[in-house]
Amino acid sequence: MRRATVGLLSRKQQPRTVATWHPRLFHSKGNHGSAEALGTVAKLPEAEPVAPLKPRQNVSLADIQERRAKAGRLVAMTAAYSDSDMFKGPSVGKPKARRWDHHISPEAAVREPCVLKQAAKHLKKPGIISLGGGLPCPEYFPIESLTLRVPQSPHFSEAATRASGQDLHIGKYDVASQKSEYDLSIALNYHQATGSAQLLRFVTEHTELVCNPPYADWRSCLTVGSTGSLEQAFRLLCNGARGDSVLTEEYSFSTALETAAPLGIALVGVRMDEQGLLPESMDEILTNWDAGERGGARKPHVLYTVPSGQNPTGATQGEERRREIYRVAQRHDVYIIEDEPYYFLQMQPHSASSGGPVKEGVVQAGAPEPESVDAFLGSLIPSLLSMDTDGRVMRLDSFSKVLSPGTRLGWVTASEQMIERYIRHAEVCNQGPSGLSQVVVHKLLDETWGHEGYLRWLMNLRVEYTKRRDVMMAACERYLPGEIVSWSPPVAGMFAWFKVDPTLHPDARNGRTALDIEEEIFNLCIDKGVLVGRGSWFRVPEEPYPHKVTLAEKSTKEEPNEIFFRATFAAATSENMTEAIRRFSEAVKEVYKL
Amino acid sequence: MRRATVGLLSRKQQPRTVATWHPRLFHSKGNHGSAEALGTVAKLPEAEPVAPLKPRQNVSLADIQERRAKAGRLVAMTAAYSDSDMFKGPSVGKPKARRWDHHISPEAAVREPCVLKQAAKHLKKPGIISLGGGLPCPEYFPIESLTLRVPQSPHFSEAATRASGQDLHIGKYDVASQKSEYDLSIALNYHQATGSAQLLRFVTEHTELVCNPPYADWRSCLTVGSTGSLEQAFRLLCNGARGDSVLTEEYSFSTALETAAPLGIALVGVRMDEQGLLPESMDEILTNWDAGERGGARKPHVLYTVPSGQNPTGATQGEERRREIYRVAQRHDVYIIEDEPYYFLQMQPHSASSGGPVKEGVVQAGAPEPESVDAFLGSLIPSLLSMDTDGRVMRLDSFSKVLSPGTRLGWVTASEQMIERYIRHAEVCNQGPSGLSQVVVHKLLDETWGHEGYLRWLMNLRVEYTKRRDVMMAACERYLPGEIVSWSPPVAGMFAWFKVDPTLHPDARNGRTALDIEEEIFNLCIDKGVLVGRGSWFRVPEEPYPHKVTLAEKSTKEEPNEIFFRATFAAATSENMTEAIRRFSEAVKEVYKL
Repeated sequence: MRRATVGLLSRKQQPRTVATWHPRLFHSKGNHGSAEALGTVAKLPEAEPVAPLKPRQNVSLADIQERRAKAGRLVAMTAAYSDSDMFKGPSVGKPKARRWDHHISPEAAVREPCVLKQAAKHLKKPGIISLGGGLPCPEYFPIESLTLRVPQSPHFSEAATRASGQDLHIGKYDVASQKSEYDLSIALNYHQATGSAQLLRFVTEHTELVCNPPYADWRSCLTVGSTGSLEQAFRLLCNGARGDSVLTEEYSFSTALETAAPLGIALVGVRMDEQGLLPESMDEILTNWDAGERGGARKPHVLYTVPSGQNPTGATQGEERRREIYRVAQRHDVYIIEDEPYYFLQMQPHSASSGGPVKEGVVQAGAPEPESVDAFLGSLIPSLLSMDTDGRVMRLDSFSKVLSPGTRLGWVTASEQMIERYIRHAEVCNQGPSGLSQVVVHKLLDETWGHEGYLRWLMNLRVEYTKRRDVMMAACERYLPGEIVSWSPPVAGMFAWFKVDPTLHPDARNGRTALDIEEEIFNLCIDKGVLVGRGSWFRVPEEPYPHKVTLAEKSTKEEPNEIFFRATFAAATSENMTEAIRRFSEAVKEVYKL
Repeated sequence: MRRATVGLLSRKQQPRTVATWHPRLFHSKGNHGSAEALGTVAKLPEAEPVAPLKPRQNVSLADIQERRAKAGRLVAMTAAYSDSDMFKGPSVGKPKARRWDHHISPEAAVREPCVLKQAAKHLKKPGIISLGGGLPCPEYFPIESLTLRVPQSPHFSEAATRASGQDLHIGKYDVASQKSEYDLSIALNYHQATGSAQLLRFVTEHTELVCNPPYADWRSCLTVGSTGSLEQAFRLLCNGARGDSVLTEEYSFSTALETAAPLGIALVGVRMDEQGLLPESMDEILTNWDAGERGGARKPHVLYTVPSGQNPTGATQGEERRREIYRVAQRHDVYIIEDEPYYFLQMQPHSASSGGPVKEGVVQAGAPEPESVDAFLGSLIPSLLSMDTDGRVMRLDSFSKVLSPGTRLGWVTASEQMIERYIRHAEVCNQGPSGLSQVVVHKLLDETWGHEGYLRWLMNLRVEYTKRRDVMMAACERYLPGEIVSWSPPVAGMFAWFKVDPTLHPDARNGRTALDIEEEIFNLCIDKGVLVGRGSWFRVPEEPYPHKVTLAEKSTKEEPNEIFFRATFAAATSENMTEAIRRFSEAVKEVYKL
């Protein structure tokens, strides 16, 4: 087990050196229910210095519990400043991240901090009255309280929740009355662009439990979800006028293509196999890059990748694959955007399939379902962030696929330098996520379930998605013509990816292109009553270089002779999913005249 | 009264021509609680064609009630497509907006629609099963229901809410059980980037009630708040590489300065008086623009203005002022971004003040407090959008100052062309606002208070802010040295703006600059325990032209010989506000050696 819990050192065993974490304890005003606390700093009561533990791989639930118990009550009033360093464990012995000044875009480089938020530093003076920030008074927030009906961990089903769920209450002044560390008077007012200290603490600890980045100065920042994070990351790292290009899987998330194109960023497709992006293809592209041949585009300095349950292919990079990709990135000074919406939708291995071999090297066939939280954490493929000794990874996390997309809530993790630049942009492009979403998610995950309960929720999702995947795979085995259609049972995510062989089409020799056949199958699917995704929607164009506009010569490369379809097993009922695969199969057979 | 209700025509009186509004009624799947309805179209039951009313100034509450009654139940499932045209009244006789292709930035011009959202059009086929979109199943949303405690209109105080407020219930499957038109299964899933049809309907109608834009093809779109809308608007209209510049008040919202600068947009300050931006200054700048003298910057094609309770000056443009600004914009082909967070914080006139004359021309002194909703609407200074015959205004509205900033919820209104481009960006930069925020605000404003109740809430805010403003003004009259400090009682917003005369400083002739004196007063304020905003934080730089980098010659213009301070009356208690003004006064007197 890679992430087995390391037992706590007893107080006596701990070396009495000064803690490196939690360096700032400023005065907070501690005024309740007033909007005057803009920019005060989240405060934990003065605790005795916590001795650093030895550098080590893992952080356990017990470590976090102990740390919280020592720190005491979190005091973070309206718009209080906070950062992950206030909540992280010791980072003694870890190196500092590299600097990325040479990668940062001109736009991101010149951003100045918000002058009004800076001024709020004066609010730490005791007794000061603020006529500074234009924050409304909570008296005028028309919600007195919120009550949520939620599952009691680990009884997560809707039926159990209706029968025996718990009602959580969020009042407007729960902080003043010491009922909670977070309330509506704070959540409904402005926040810092990092989000609230209360929820930032939770995601910082969660990131430590799951990824424990191996460098010292990592930070997290709450976001409005990974769609927005990706655009921010592109604007932070890339500049169309500089001729920037970004590597990504040759079949990539269509929204990523749509995000990059208007910014003048050329996406460059890297070849893939069953485990996703091929490091040797990445290395080859980078080694042989010729800006002249590429319409003046600079050698890519960024990789955008979805390591787990990649969208659209469903491919998942195994641990060794990830390490190779990281090494290639190091070799070529490439910064990595690790987009992981499906990380916790890693499933049990699928036993066998007519469509493809069992994926040794990604997950072990026959592995038992993890029963403990530690076993669950140990079963997860290590993230790129967990290998990131250079601080060259920005990981995008999201609650969309594991709690609900409607929260519009996620977080990013990267080195302090990159998070600081990210926050400067967030201050002007969204001011951080909805406070209502934050307080609801905090009440559920932090105050009610805790880290363990939340991990159990994720374990429950693993079971549910495994079932759904297996229903689709059974339908595939039953209906799809294996001689024409091939697939691999996905081990993570929401998507299956079907490869259709264009060379077996009766008109293959009569000039019928793969794209023609793809379209014919897609249209027939609609006629028969099933919507699937077309592979061509996701394909990174061969010649995407916007810098090439002055070149008269056009590429003579042919369209790829490939046909793919994407299908999700996340949404439909078992019956509908089975029927949908049957219809898809009928469409393929009809087009292939079987 | 400008907005008196126009009586409804009886059915018989209505001409039987075909309605121009609500042109699209597509099939929606109507499946409940499933995520398969991505991209279905919001549907109102087929109603008999509604005859258009005569073109006219005003839309009344009764018009909207009648329209809703005729339209019947709104069916808008998960991620349903919707637009304002589905909810607007007749636009017969109104001209179409002009086109702004020549103003749109290259980045905005090339945006393509999201291919996955486009594909969802196939879902209107009856019986189709979607394996298309990667939407999670609502079964896995861990919130079974939400209950809100809110005021019962018009008893809005916190005490009344605690004593006799109402509890609103939002269930996961309220749509399936016909309890509501909106529920958690929809709100917690993905939305279109426009936001939900349910809340879009409300803000569309509200915009009609308040602004009723005088052209046909206006649309609204929900946003993550006006901070984000402003950045999106800048990116939509401006391009640093093109040498774009934007006009704004010479003292402008500091976040706007911080948003524009990294984009390479030069902000150009327009002189102001008590009513804010001076149209003749704007006209002069535009008429005499010389790109050579301005470091190559193009003649401004955009105006960014805060017409009501401007931040930081608190100035409010009167109706005639707005008309003049609009005329100057027409003369010079300028597009207007109308940022109106404080529009509904228009207050009762302040009777008199030692600091300045009563502002005739903005609000009439001695006007009675509006008692009816119609009188309230009639008391509001008409918005630029309400005068916008060309469709050259993008109005930014926000719930931050009138409900709560923590909702991160607002909306923009502009012509169809501009809103379509705006949405294309929103799809990749935030995917619209939090669904939790949307469903909570919808439950309160639409389902519970209705338009009338919400307007009464805004009337209540008017009373409350009037009281707060008056407390601050009383303290100013009592404490501030009138020979040195002058001010005008604001008629809208959250801010008072104090002008301090630098020429009366004892060291004025010894080379002591206005900026030095400002700093000295500010620091002494902090020492004495009050935080105010420094005018210089908000001043648009005289030479902001980033395009001028190659010019060796630097401007020799002097620093302005002006000192201002901004103070908010929104946040502190009466006692604190009075004490804070006393401390500010002490600081000024001490610096001036009085």
